[in-house]
Amino acid sequence: MSALLGLGDMLAGRFGERWIAHEAGRAQFMAAEGHHAAGMPDVVAQPRTIEDVQMLMAAAHAAGVPVVPLGVGTSLEGNAGAVAGAVSVDLSGMNRVLEVAPEDLLCVVEPGVTREALNEELRATGLFFPIDPGANATLGGMISTRASGTNAVRYGTMRENVLGLRVVLPDGTLIRTGSRARKSAAGYDLTHLFAGSEGTLGLIVEASVRLHGIPEAVLAGSWGFDSLDGAVQTVIETIQSGVPVARMELLDPVAIRACNAYAGLTLAEQPTLFVELHGSPRGVAEQREMLSAIGAEHGGGALTISADRDEQRRLWRARHAALPAARAMVTDAVTWSTDICVPISKLAGAISGARAAIDAAGLLAPILGHVGDGNYHVFFVLRRDDAAGWAKARAVNEELIDYALSVGGTCTGEHGIGIGKRGALVREHGADAVALMRRIKAAIDPAGLMNPGKIFAEE
Amino acid sequence: MSALLGLGDMLAGRFGERWIAHEAGRAQFMAAEGHHAAGMPDVVAQPRTIEDVQMLMAAAHAAGVPVVPLGVGTSLEGNAGAVAGAVSVDLSGMNRVLEVAPEDLLCVVEPGVTREALNEELRATGLFFPIDPGANATLGGMISTRASGTNAVRYGTMRENVLGLRVVLPDGTLIRTGSRARKSAAGYDLTHLFAGSEGTLGLIVEASVRLHGIPEAVLAGSWGFDSLDGAVQTVIETIQSGVPVARMELLDPVAIRACNAYAGLTLAEQPTLFVELHGSPRGVAEQREMLSAIGAEHGGGALTISADRDEQRRLWRARHAALPAARAMVTDAVTWSTDICVPISKLAGAISGARAAIDAAGLLAPILGHVGDGNYHVFFVLRRDDAAGWAKARAVNEELIDYALSVGGTCTGEHGIGIGKRGALVREHGADAVALMRRIKAAIDPAGLMNPGKIFAEE
Ligand SMILES: Cc1cc2nc3c(=O)[nH]c(=O)nc-3n(C[C@H](O)[C@H](O)[C@H](O)COP(=O)(O)OP(=O)(O)OC[C@H]3O[C@@H](n4cnc5c(N)ncnc54)[C@H](O)[C@@H]3O)c2cc1C
Ligand SMILES: Cc1cc2nc3c(=O)[nH]c(=O)nc-3n(C[C@H](O)[C@H](O)[C@H](O)COP(=O)(O)OP(=O)(O)OC[C@H]3O[C@@H](n4cnc5c(N)ncnc54)[C@H](O)[C@@H]3O)c2cc1C
Repeated sequence: MSALLGLGDMLAGRFGERWIAHEAGRAQFMAAEGHHAAGMPDVVAQPRTIEDVQMLMAAAHAAGVPVVPLGVGTSLEGNAGAVAGAVSVDLSGMNRVLEVAPEDLLCVVEPGVTREALNEELRATGLFFPIDPGANATLGGMISTRASGTNAVRYGTMRENVLGLRVVLPDGTLIRTGSRARKSAAGYDLTHLFAGSEGTLGLIVEASVRLHGIPEAVLAGSWGFDSLDGAVQTVIETIQSGVPVARMELLDPVAIRACNAYAGLTLAEQPTLFVELHGSPRGVAEQREMLSAIGAEHGGGALTISADRDEQRRLWRARHAALPAARAMVTDAVTWSTDICVPISKLAGAISGARAAIDAAGLLAPILGHVGDGNYHVFFVLRRDDAAGWAKARAVNEELIDYALSVGGTCTGEHGIGIGKRGALVREHGADAVALMRRIKAAIDPAGLMNPGKIFAEE
Repeated sequence: MSALLGLGDMLAGRFGERWIAHEAGRAQFMAAEGHHAAGMPDVVAQPRTIEDVQMLMAAAHAAGVPVVPLGVGTSLEGNAGAVAGAVSVDLSGMNRVLEVAPEDLLCVVEPGVTREALNEELRATGLFFPIDPGANATLGGMISTRASGTNAVRYGTMRENVLGLRVVLPDGTLIRTGSRARKSAAGYDLTHLFAGSEGTLGLIVEASVRLHGIPEAVLAGSWGFDSLDGAVQTVIETIQSGVPVARMELLDPVAIRACNAYAGLTLAEQPTLFVELHGSPRGVAEQREMLSAIGAEHGGGALTISADRDEQRRLWRARHAALPAARAMVTDAVTWSTDICVPISKLAGAISGARAAIDAAGLLAPILGHVGDGNYHVFFVLRRDDAAGWAKARAVNEELIDYALSVGGTCTGEHGIGIGKRGALVREHGADAVALMRRIKAAIDPAGLMNPGKIFAEE
């Protein structure tokens, strides 16, 4: 704490009330969304400008104080968790949309802008920003975890949608990466090195991201199936045939039960796809035909999708609330959302294997996810004191990861490594590749001050 | 040379005739495509296996011998040029397609596979690999320069199409990056760090790349315009309206003249777009209507595009041969192809500015390019001994880069930095960002043995 106190003194003039050291204030920044034990930050700094961040970083660097960047703390693997003796940097106040350039299909934002605020701001332009994690996360957090969401199957993830960044390095230096052009071959791709680095390399203070035209026609709806495997096979063949679905989400019967209860839906408790199609009126009609034909082969009911915006909104609001909905299934429960991604042809094996493992362990855990990407989540619903349940969930989680790795998949499609998947990272990439990542980390952050203990276990 | 001789002795048993030290042999590996003075490699090694590469790299590392990875040497900024005292590593013999996985829309290749060989291999699958630089380049070279081509406007560049790599690091260690899943948030994005690193960080020995379904319907043709600006405005509005064109290439009247003469086309010498549309029969019809309507506003002639595969092939063969076609305009000429990319809304200014600068300098230089990406090329056609011409071309090149940077663009959309744009790299990203790139380089290649002098000027 003494280094922190010294830092506070140094920055007092600049930060004033935006340097939060009292407990009631700090308690609001515990980043407690995930299932990991949330720590209380020792101190929280709230920069408002790039210069604030530069000064903070330079001072922390000089004082040897670790820095934990924080968006709105909705990440699920302890990615933004407080670290003892560190300053947590709350970026949610740097939340201006600096520029919207419809003519170049891009905008420039401060890191604390949330996806909902951004889309609100874009309303009049006919454009939208497609990446939509269930939470109303910040763009800085989303870039830092390579987040995605329901639209990624068509529009890509944060990786494909970030064009350039401004980043404050651990010593306070400000750099610019990328450009406003759609492509570039100019030097190392720093933009994509920072994207997904979970605050361990520097602090993103500005981002240019791609925008997309709001489609002329949108059809969406839910689609019930006789069997889980039938729903999944429909997804696989849809992707393999290149139907450009905009959203293709799976909810298993347990997830449907949770959403019915929580969000007032009245869907049959069966394996269900939530589907959305974007295009011209003729284009979406054509996509609908192709989808119907594929689903009919696999026990799909009638594909009743509609253009009614209110119904669509209700559907996606329910989908986005699936995690709290799962939590609400059991009084005083915690959810542990694990996130797996496999090559599309392996999705059926992955999901039937997950269901079998969950059932064999006797756990309550809906399965759902952005299946068009081969990405699914399991929400383990557990009471904190259910030690046996947690042990079983840990074992099932490892089993899901092992399966994914055995078929060429990844231990996380979008949530990142945080503290929860540090071991899996080594299993996935091998010790030599992770050693290389550590060398890059050491080159950029030699003192190891940026978000220590995340991605890599401390040595 | 003495370190090289020692290295040769060390590797003699393994490489035998694939260690080429005699002049006639080495002369075939001069990577002389660009306008930069081509050097003769002192020695060329031809690995056939990953183990060959590992042994070579470990031995070079031990002996302190620099290594220059080489695909087929078609890069245009001296990226693969020989370095005195170095071993040039010819990867064109590692050219097997290791696996085609249509069910996951991907394939796994050795680095020396060329784009044409790959598509030949994919013929029976209904899938294709879209990235098509004009030359029949290798996948390893294309990944290393973040290459693109005519299809990138729809299918993305190498950046978007590479899923994972196997890389031999400078000390001979073999690592794996990425996965076969469509997305991943697992650790630093090493795949995209190596992509575009121009052989300065390691040697790519295997790559997994995305494949795409061959579209049901393809329409293509050339489209003449009254004015250069009209053609460019048509491109801008097409992209802004989100018409998913598959190819949209500009050829100015000088380029058309060159292609008519070289490739036997009979097009009117006017600003021309080569366009291709992919989709369902109804989808391409719809795209054609939208395009026509946009072009009609800007002095476009009739949009006569057809489904005739032979005509389409003739058109694209002519487009791909535009560089030799330009060279053939003047006896004993050399072409200098520069490569600029700007945000789409700035394309009109960029191209009219380029034409004005070329004309003011009195140079012969067709303008053409992948304009759907905001990417264009100027082919300066020069005799080697025309010192004044070269000086003027240098000045115009700097002017084009300055304009691009002033509007948020990049000094290279797809050719990379090589030796030709090292100064521009610093202007584009700033000294601090380039210093960070150098720190990453030093972390991965501490002895500075990988392709020295490329991307960064030697210190
Ligand atoms: C109900 C619910 C649903 C979710 N659904 C999805 C989903 O569909 N897809 C998905 O991808 N995720 C999902 N998530 C997870 C979460 O929303 C994402 O991880 C999101 O990207 C986190 O954003 P945040 O602003 O909350 O960042 P935080 O949690 O505050 O931080 C995330 C990471 O980024 C770092 N960071 C934050 N800001 C910066 C910055 N400016 N510079 C450098 N580093 C920074 C932090 O240090 C941390 O490592 C969900 C979460 C919840 C609670
Ligand atoms: C007529 C013509 C048209 C062209 N059109 C285009 C175009 O439309 N778009 C475009 O992007 N480019 C174009 N180019 C440029 C060129 O084709 C590309 O730069 C291509 O990517 C080079 O591939 P290559 O196999 O020839 O690689 P090389 O030129 O041999 O090498 C390129 C770079 O990659 C490195 N490298 C090669 N293999 C490896 C490996 N396995 N591991 C690590 N590093 C490696 C080299 O060291 C070098 O830095 C064109 C060139 C010509 C001659």
